[in-house]
Amino acid sequence: MIVKVMESVLAANESAALRVRGRLAGSGTFMVNLIGSPGAGKTSLLERCVPVLSRQLRLGIIEGDVETIRDAERLSGLGVPIVAVSTKGMCHLDSATIDEALNGLPADLDLVFIENVGNLVCPAEFDLGEAEKTAVVSVTEGHDKPEKYPLLFRLASVVVLNKADLAPYTDFDGAAFRASLSRLNPRSELFEVSCRAGSGLDPWISRILSQAAAFREGRRTKT
Amino acid sequence: MIVKVMESVLAANESAALRVRGRLAGSGTFMVNLIGSPGAGKTSLLERCVPVLSRQLRLGIIEGDVETIRDAERLSGLGVPIVAVSTKGMCHLDSATIDEALNGLPADLDLVFIENVGNLVCPAEFDLGEAEKTAVVSVTEGHDKPEKYPLLFRLASVVVLNKADLAPYTDFDGAAFRASLSRLNPRSELFEVSCRAGSGLDPWISRILSQAAAFREGRRTKT
Repeated sequence: MIVKVMESVLAANESAALRVRGRLAGSGTFMVNLIGSPGAGKTSLLERCVPVLSRQLRLGIIEGDVETIRDAERLSGLGVPIVAVSTKGMCHLDSATIDEALNGLPADLDLVFIENVGNLVCPAEFDLGEAEKTAVVSVTEGHDKPEKYPLLFRLASVVVLNKADLAPYTDFDGAAFRASLSRLNPRSELFEVSCRAGSGLDPWISRILSQAAAFREGRRTKT
Repeated sequence: MIVKVMESVLAANESAALRVRGRLAGSGTFMVNLIGSPGAGKTSLLERCVPVLSRQLRLGIIEGDVETIRDAERLSGLGVPIVAVSTKGMCHLDSATIDEALNGLPADLDLVFIENVGNLVCPAEFDLGEAEKTAVVSVTEGHDKPEKYPLLFRLASVVVLNKADLAPYTDFDGAAFRASLSRLNPRSELFEVSCRAGSGLDPWISRILSQAAAFREGRRTKT
């Protein structure tokens, strides 16, 4: 019974996602949906990278949280427009909410980051009309996460592996992690970073810049 | 609309939870629902504690996972009966599933651990008929988790704070974590442990032993 309920919810979500995707194609806005567990480092990633990206791109953020707007507050000093969405207990953002949130941002942005609710499961099921999903995962969560939560890793074009500086203090097996990822999604791109130490972020930032430019110029064929 | 859907799902869940709770009261089986993010250490906690607990208690495990039965496989050497539940993509266990899973375990157990799907959000909303919920959270997730995911911390009688050995390498603020927890749930009991190092576990194990004994003897009034 629950599965049937989910199917109807997902169908409604899909039609709003199409609307969002059309809208962003029209404005040339590259939208990235950041998905990861609580504490994986999604907000920290934005804190590190938005100051660099916003020098070259017009950028906005949609911040999803279950009950608070703490993450939006953390990011409020970055000087970019932010729409804070409190999901009132729901475990994911949906595309109708994103459609509405976009009304609160300038219409001519180059790049929108969505920080989804901290959750490796449900957010992966909801297409938000984004250009791509990015999985944010940390070494302290263990190398078995792609195997255990495969849907996200199958769908994510990019995987950011955070807290690389803590690897020596854990049993994280990088080779096993990379092997799982390659098996689930051979085309995914992996970036190993430490948001706390500020290391490994430049390649990810460069990729965002080039992808956003290509999207804007309509040269990007994959949506 | 989604909220209405959730309400009907939750009402159905509540009636099955009552059935489970009555069944366990009859058999004197203390059931603990372990809830935490992916990688917080729920399986590691069981790996450490089940060998000790099973010397004194008849124990069973219900292992929930989204797609795989990896955690059940990890625990299969412990010599206790395990029912593996794959939720087929759903982000939480529900009480009807637990009712069915209990049929796969011996009827006269003293203690059942449920390891819920790795998720701080949805599992907190679904009463499984357990005697108590235990939140498993790790220092590497950050001290703001109680504030950001308050429902679980309001409902959990016990909080196990894992990966205490990694605290020196993070910005985890223990005082802030404890203050949030006290504010959300003044009666919750906090245990700081490292499953990897095997430290801090004895007080938690002692508490389980005494709670299970009290439940069995019917002296425990709070269900």
